[in-house]
Amino acid sequence: MDQVYIENIADHEGQEVTLKGWLYNKRSSGKLHFLQVRDGTGTIQCVIFKKDVPEQAFEQAAHLAQESAIIVHGTVRADERSPIGFEVGVSDLELVGEASDYPITPKDHGVAFLLDNRHLWVRSARQHAVLRIRSEIAHACRQYFDDRGFVLFDSPILTPAACEGTTTLFETPYFDETAYLTQSGQLYLEAGAMAFGKAYCFGPTFRAEKSKTRRHLMEFWMVEPEVAYMDLAGDMDLAEDFVEYVVQRVVQNRRRELDVLERDVGKLESVRKPFPRITYDEAVTTLRDKGFSIEWGEDFGAEEETVLSEAYDRPVLVHRYPAACKAFYMKADPENAKLALCVDMLAPEGYGEIIGGGQREDDLQTLEGKITEHGLPHEAFSWYLDLRRYGSVPHAGFGMGIERAVAWICGLHHVRETIPFPRMLERLTP
Amino acid sequence: MDQVYIENIADHEGQEVTLKGWLYNKRSSGKLHFLQVRDGTGTIQCVIFKKDVPEQAFEQAAHLAQESAIIVHGTVRADERSPIGFEVGVSDLELVGEASDYPITPKDHGVAFLLDNRHLWVRSARQHAVLRIRSEIAHACRQYFDDRGFVLFDSPILTPAACEGTTTLFETPYFDETAYLTQSGQLYLEAGAMAFGKAYCFGPTFRAEKSKTRRHLMEFWMVEPEVAYMDLAGDMDLAEDFVEYVVQRVVQNRRRELDVLERDVGKLESVRKPFPRITYDEAVTTLRDKGFSIEWGEDFGAEEETVLSEAYDRPVLVHRYPAACKAFYMKADPENAKLALCVDMLAPEGYGEIIGGGQREDDLQTLEGKITEHGLPHEAFSWYLDLRRYGSVPHAGFGMGIERAVAWICGLHHVRETIPFPRMLERLTP
Repeated sequence: MDQVYIENIADHEGQEVTLKGWLYNKRSSGKLHFLQVRDGTGTIQCVIFKKDVPEQAFEQAAHLAQESAIIVHGTVRADERSPIGFEVGVSDLELVGEASDYPITPKDHGVAFLLDNRHLWVRSARQHAVLRIRSEIAHACRQYFDDRGFVLFDSPILTPAACEGTTTLFETPYFDETAYLTQSGQLYLEAGAMAFGKAYCFGPTFRAEKSKTRRHLMEFWMVEPEVAYMDLAGDMDLAEDFVEYVVQRVVQNRRRELDVLERDVGKLESVRKPFPRITYDEAVTTLRDKGFSIEWGEDFGAEEETVLSEAYDRPVLVHRYPAACKAFYMKADPENAKLALCVDMLAPEGYGEIIGGGQREDDLQTLEGKITEHGLPHEAFSWYLDLRRYGSVPHAGFGMGIERAVAWICGLHHVRETIPFPRMLERLTP
Repeated sequence: MDQVYIENIADHEGQEVTLKGWLYNKRSSGKLHFLQVRDGTGTIQCVIFKKDVPEQAFEQAAHLAQESAIIVHGTVRADERSPIGFEVGVSDLELVGEASDYPITPKDHGVAFLLDNRHLWVRSARQHAVLRIRSEIAHACRQYFDDRGFVLFDSPILTPAACEGTTTLFETPYFDETAYLTQSGQLYLEAGAMAFGKAYCFGPTFRAEKSKTRRHLMEFWMVEPEVAYMDLAGDMDLAEDFVEYVVQRVVQNRRRELDVLERDVGKLESVRKPFPRITYDEAVTTLRDKGFSIEWGEDFGAEEETVLSEAYDRPVLVHRYPAACKAFYMKADPENAKLALCVDMLAPEGYGEIIGGGQREDDLQTLEGKITEHGLPHEAFSWYLDLRRYGSVPHAGFGMGIERAVAWICGLHHVRETIPFPRMLERLTP
């Protein structure tokens, strides 16, 4: 008989079905076993009455270990007590793969142990919820841009030069040259915006930062749109519309997973545009009022970001930072050259920066000057300068780090659970 | 006035609009300029009558260089001669960014020159068509799996060990360790299949192969599904259903781009399941009949693949290759241990292998033996073996290389045009 997935079980009420999965949990009395069976799409209670199954199957069920691979034959019936509304009355059972001494038991384990067993940990209900939400977020990001005429324009991972200094770059021999792993697809994506008007990329990016914070991974995914003829104001409009879309889609499609995580969904429901917008200057004033002794010109740290975002029930856009603390490609504010036409979006509830972006410098001479100022090699940026030599236009974009967005939307303390196999300072395995 | 995109021009017939784009081409007579304007979403003819525009705008139009960034104001009118059905009667023109001596002119350029100017070459009509089809294919791949309940399970790019030997791996220092750039997400994805039943990954993969063929890139994207409780037969069903879906979606949504490429669409329309399926043994017989002196046990090269696929008007599935020429994780055929339960899909018209996959070894002892046989370090595969220790099930999957699929569907001679910034043996730039 063909396999039925638990997510579709409601279509099979009253029918004899075959489930193929794993034993998630079990309890037994003398004549009865209750198996919690998971198949990756859901979990369902399978009830084995001694009188309903071959004797050997009943015996086997008594000794099944957690995570044993099993095939269950039985009849689907409605059950009010079930979280999914159905259970299965078992008629037969096959053991496909044993699992004695499965390392992750229902008791508490330390995080290091769980990360060592990440390949198994991903089978747990909580990790399921997080990774299904990650999958939904990734899908939502792409759908948003695909639906709005953006062309997917994959930026290269292996790049010949550093875009913001080499200290935090991973490098690899590339035949007779050296290649660096990308930190952002933006520069290449700008070529895409000049070709397609609206382009986006979405891929892994890398930072070899010796950071051990709850917000940093060495390898993380970033989605980046870039739009020709868009200015900073348009960029902020796009960013808030995009984030609202992504969050509301998760709320709509992944309610069950948010509940597993005990996420306060009300806090996500209030993520509606318009988002508050404050300038860097206003942010500094706010911080000083709250007792921070911050100098004008300094970038904000995690603590400052948390305090700034606490005042709002939705993300806040902080724009026009001092140019000196931002990357060379940021366009200066025509009204005050000390400011960059840039924006960071800070998530609420202390999650800090999830988006960074802004308008790019589109004037050739100014950009050449910035490259010199930042001590970067002109030769390596010759192709990038071509984008200003030939039909330069105002343009803007942003990047959203997926893992931070997942952590915020799921309400997680640490980004390490937001990706199947996190790469951290002291963790390259499994 | 707000910008109107050319792709939406039909919604604005008779209206005054503003287009923001670049000059693609131009011809002039005394009182008239015909500007071909592109904005990334399309190209439209903009007609400037001397009497309709300010004198300075008419003068400027006379001297506009190719790829100048311009904003055009004018009225949309139907025009039967236009490939898109409309043209614009210009009322005013602004020059946003100059572009003197744009390097890529309508004359023929050598491929090396074009690749050196890849950041500009992507603005050309032909490259537009290819990259829009790439974007469509990527979207189709994801949609296919998302719609069928597969969970996106991103495999790591930085991995601690080699899955098929280290000779073709890029490596990077990772703090005190060495990391290798992934060649395939499969092994990690198997953990995803055990957790979610149906999982897929889609990301960049890397091979440091000293190959200079028209089918090889150092950095390429691969989409890989993996399904628990699926066998080789199910894997072949999935692969053909998937490829039919992707190809027919491109035919449906990207007809205009296929026409730009002068692709014989009839050849794509015949890509309908069922695809022919032949065994390796049958393939060897066919090759010998055609004069190849191939030994049983050898893998097929590009030439053999071309000859095998020539017999069919759609992709052909070649299954059950000799185990000795395949990776350690392939499951042996229970009916003949010398054969692996694997499958390659060869595209028609000489495009060769676009998919490789099969059923994975699910028996712990057998897999341990294979790892020893292949001289691989057991320690590095300890986590992978855990997937056989705890609830092992039959499972299968495959990987499709995106660039080869794009080359085939677009009818291109070489994969170098199928990705925004190709990375090849002697090319790491721009």
